[in-house]
Amino acid sequence: MKRPLLLYSLSGIVIAMFAASASCDADPLAETTRKIAAEITANGRAYVNLQELTAIGPRLSGSEGAAKAVQWAARKMKSYGFDRVILQPTMVPHWTRGDVERAAVTSGARPLALEIAALGNSVGTPKEGVEGGVLEVHGLDEVRSLGKAVRGKIVFYNRPMDPTLAVTFQAYGKAVDQRTRGASVAAKQGAVAVLVRSMTTLSDEHYPHTGLLVYEEGTRKIPAAALSTHSANELSQLLKSHPNLSVNLKLSAVQDRFVSSFNVIGEITGRDLPQEYVVVGGHLDSWDLGTGAHDDGAGVVQSIETLRTLKALNLHPRRTIRAVLFMAEEFGAFGADEYARQAKAKGEKHVAALESDSGGFAPVGFQVEGGDQKVAALKRFIPYLAPLHAGSIEKGWSGTDVAPLGAQGAITLGYVPVSTHYFDYHHSARDRIEAVDSKDLHAGAAAIATLTYLLAEKGP
Amino acid sequence: MKRPLLLYSLSGIVIAMFAASASCDADPLAETTRKIAAEITANGRAYVNLQELTAIGPRLSGSEGAAKAVQWAARKMKSYGFDRVILQPTMVPHWTRGDVERAAVTSGARPLALEIAALGNSVGTPKEGVEGGVLEVHGLDEVRSLGKAVRGKIVFYNRPMDPTLAVTFQAYGKAVDQRTRGASVAAKQGAVAVLVRSMTTLSDEHYPHTGLLVYEEGTRKIPAAALSTHSANELSQLLKSHPNLSVNLKLSAVQDRFVSSFNVIGEITGRDLPQEYVVVGGHLDSWDLGTGAHDDGAGVVQSIETLRTLKALNLHPRRTIRAVLFMAEEFGAFGADEYARQAKAKGEKHVAALESDSGGFAPVGFQVEGGDQKVAALKRFIPYLAPLHAGSIEKGWSGTDVAPLGAQGAITLGYVPVSTHYFDYHHSARDRIEAVDSKDLHAGAAAIATLTYLLAEKGP
Repeated sequence: MKRPLLLYSLSGIVIAMFAASASCDADPLAETTRKIAAEITANGRAYVNLQELTAIGPRLSGSEGAAKAVQWAARKMKSYGFDRVILQPTMVPHWTRGDVERAAVTSGARPLALEIAALGNSVGTPKEGVEGGVLEVHGLDEVRSLGKAVRGKIVFYNRPMDPTLAVTFQAYGKAVDQRTRGASVAAKQGAVAVLVRSMTTLSDEHYPHTGLLVYEEGTRKIPAAALSTHSANELSQLLKSHPNLSVNLKLSAVQDRFVSSFNVIGEITGRDLPQEYVVVGGHLDSWDLGTGAHDDGAGVVQSIETLRTLKALNLHPRRTIRAVLFMAEEFGAFGADEYARQAKAKGEKHVAALESDSGGFAPVGFQVEGGDQKVAALKRFIPYLAPLHAGSIEKGWSGTDVAPLGAQGAITLGYVPVSTHYFDYHHSARDRIEAVDSKDLHAGAAAIATLTYLLAEKGP
Repeated sequence: MKRPLLLYSLSGIVIAMFAASASCDADPLAETTRKIAAEITANGRAYVNLQELTAIGPRLSGSEGAAKAVQWAARKMKSYGFDRVILQPTMVPHWTRGDVERAAVTSGARPLALEIAALGNSVGTPKEGVEGGVLEVHGLDEVRSLGKAVRGKIVFYNRPMDPTLAVTFQAYGKAVDQRTRGASVAAKQGAVAVLVRSMTTLSDEHYPHTGLLVYEEGTRKIPAAALSTHSANELSQLLKSHPNLSVNLKLSAVQDRFVSSFNVIGEITGRDLPQEYVVVGGHLDSWDLGTGAHDDGAGVVQSIETLRTLKALNLHPRRTIRAVLFMAEEFGAFGADEYARQAKAKGEKHVAALESDSGGFAPVGFQVEGGDQKVAALKRFIPYLAPLHAGSIEKGWSGTDVAPLGAQGAITLGYVPVSTHYFDYHHSARDRIEAVDSKDLHAGAAAIATLTYLLAEKGP
């Protein structure tokens, strides 16, 4: 055991590990960003805030839970002494699921109860339900090509998320048209209702995953529900031996009128350029099946945490930073639209907007929407983000809530965390506080706060 | 609900998500790497192989478990039809913990049993143990400065890993000198034994975390053990009220002679440049407290998976790829040294060597050891890695086992996964198969296989 290699190897490890932070000595910005991350990692409040927020319950657009969340967020921001806290009124849709959701095989095969949840925005059924034979399909074009065979049928979209895609958002993007547009496409061919395999990475589970459906203008609105992947598998199996079975679907969902609600905005006024704004945000509403811990309680508490941290460290960057908690993202980004409309009306110059709406998992980096030059310019911040394992800055989609600010000239960015398990929870009863790891949530907050500070101090 | 924004927002999501993979159409390399990732994500064997490997039990250098793991790995490689499978003999240290590990407060305070594990390489104690007053310190310099006060004492190193560092490897790097060098520094001042607070991110847990200690040549070897953080906290508390308490430490650890073992090497012969080598590797040995699932079973099965995938897809890149499972990394990288020595003796030109030894967590990217130009050149592969959320290519430490190949001109790289929880498990009884998430493990394997293929096909 007297080999010089031993000492060489070990000291190699230690020396190399320090190398990443060595730049702190030379660069005051590195020292500041190190403090930001350290404050969150050591004293972060994001997780306890997420506990409080999710304890309110679901926060469906226009619901009592959403209204309580607005009050909670405003109180929280005031308690941290943000320079301004604003409730920005916005009209939002109010849809209710109601008490009745039932689907079952009623004839042509053994009785089989199906695990379902109405899709958001779906109309209800008559009290006695809608009944029809079931047509299993795997895409919108298939429905279009089937012509008259669709008439009077319940169309069953059963194309799964592609399990070969490591980044699960890609698999979601390739499957979700069944949920968003499947109802109207089927209605045009005469279908009476739609069942859609849940958008989830869990291939045989009992929770249905809901999400928005969008009715095409001028097309008959037919009821639509998500099936748990377990029920989708069972129904598909049963159809093989009993192709003429019938299903009855009962939904008590109601599309209600618009109601008033709020975006919640907290501000730290810029030191030099108070009229230039950098937004960090997420959406305050959630689906009604869980309590929106990952989607998007995580983004909410990370946005608040960003400003709390700057206050705690007495940092006043050059530009004004706003934490914006958008309302009604899940029903079509109504709060985001209102925020952008007002920004334009007031001539507020937004230089950058960063959204966290991909879950409270450990960081990978950020996606930037826009031209190659914008992306390249932002890569100068990688040295401050790589030590947080958030150093991947790539071109890509930013987020639904910041996109309207992009149209006004802001650079828009999306926080990118590990996506492996996001769609295990997404839009289902699984999306609760237990699904969130406090260290990962805080690691994400540290990355978001760091980049937000850099954008406000140095510009995009 | 008849707002055009709705459709705009939703289609925006879908379009943006597809953008990342659009380059596949134009670039055959993108298509190939997409297939590599898809094979692993859909049909990966890394997790079931890790189940098999860890079922063997601990794989301490020179142990029966390590010998069984060598046979298992060679069989596995042959079953996948690798072009060559080589057992490369190497001498490795054999240290045994033995049956007795006990530490307790024996006088000067209430009795208190301490949760301990001998550090790897520690000498044992006499049968009756070593007894002494306890001197709590927080660093090596403090011990050096205490002079005679250290004589006859058990030195208790209690500086925790810095909880403010989001990348836990940095916190490890800043604390681990207590474990690696604390014994010899204390011995020089006359200490009789050393207790070291476990190197873990869990601040109050009951499992001790072991790891290598390195005795300085010419210095008396004193016994050393890791304390669980729970016991470290308790002992520290008790010392406040009872500074004169004594502890008795009994260890049956034995430093044995060197024994023969093997590196296991699997090869896919290069299509054009068979005399140029790209290594992908991890270490086959583990600590004896758990079953080395993250450290480094993950790296072992990911390295095998890389070659399995290329075989399954019938891909033959230009250069030869070797999966190298190094032996005795934990005791000083003896297998790695032997591998590098033979490579040099045979004039094998190693152009790149990639190590996975940071756990089986979801990918962030890779660290590259070497000059800025080397790092910059490797960034051309980011477009193939970013779709796997592994697009962070940064300068940094590569790994203990590939470092000797760096000295021969190879570019060396280290796989960088999320590090949040690595040191919850590291070197402890917690490091078992239950601690590994199969999807994250496979996501890492996909990133590693992709970069290995690119290095072999395109050169570093």
